[in-house]
Amino acid sequence: MERVPILKIGDILLVSIQVDMSDQTAIQLQEDLAERIVATGCHGVIIDITALDIVDSFVGRMLSTIASISKVLDAETVVVGMRPAVAITLVELGLSLNGIRTALNVERGMELIAASRADEWDEGADDEDTETTATA
Amino acid sequence: MERVPILKIGDILLVSIQVDMSDQTAIQLQEDLAERIVATGCHGVIIDITALDIVDSFVGRMLSTIASISKVLDAETVVVGMRPAVAITLVELGLSLNGIRTALNVERGMELIAASRADEWDEGADDEDTETTATA
Repeated sequence: MERVPILKIGDILLVSIQVDMSDQTAIQLQEDLAERIVATGCHGVIIDITALDIVDSFVGRMLSTIASISKVLDAETVVVGMRPAVAITLVELGLSLNGIRTALNVERGMELIAASRADEWDEGADDEDTETTATA
Repeated sequence: MERVPILKIGDILLVSIQVDMSDQTAIQLQEDLAERIVATGCHGVIIDITALDIVDSFVGRMLSTIASISKVLDAETVVVGMRPAVAITLVELGLSLNGIRTALNVERGMELIAASRADEWDEGADDEDTETTATA
């Protein structure tokens, strides 16, 4: 089974998706990514889809799931490198990639995450006491 | 034909090889990379092979060629993420990856390139006048 590598660059995990995602590969990626976020304490995940010609509903859902998992683990997800044709197809298919932030390329994605962390830092002062309980 | 994406991060181009390299893909990658080095003026190329289970003589030669092309274009190449099993196989096969520098992961590779650029900067002062003529 193919496994998508996860690269750590500073405070960010970078995933470059180049292979066709099967159910198994997608689940493996979600698990690997969750583990790496916890192990490294990274606060940002960048998913590069430059190599993808097509983003169908399956890949769209996978991206949404990854974003949700990362959010729970206090990491922000940014999808970068979307081709113009992919964006057009997504809109035509009515897939809106809910809750996913996008950027033009990896560098902009890094800036976006850095900026967003800085904002949270500013606002975070009085949220510190808030406690969230998750039930399985 | 599959095309390996090239990501620009700061002064470095990052290539994550995840697919089996055919002749065509390898040549395309070499061309794309040369173009990107010239277009961006980057001084470092990091090739991540975390996803590769096997590095045979074809891939080894491709890595050497990329390193040589990059060098001519004043960019340093570092191969990162080699698995232990791959290293063992390479040595057993007698492939020494001539002229290729390696690092454990992307972050170390970036440090290596940064350090090596700093060294060159120090030594470069009196090499400026040296002129090299290449004949095809």
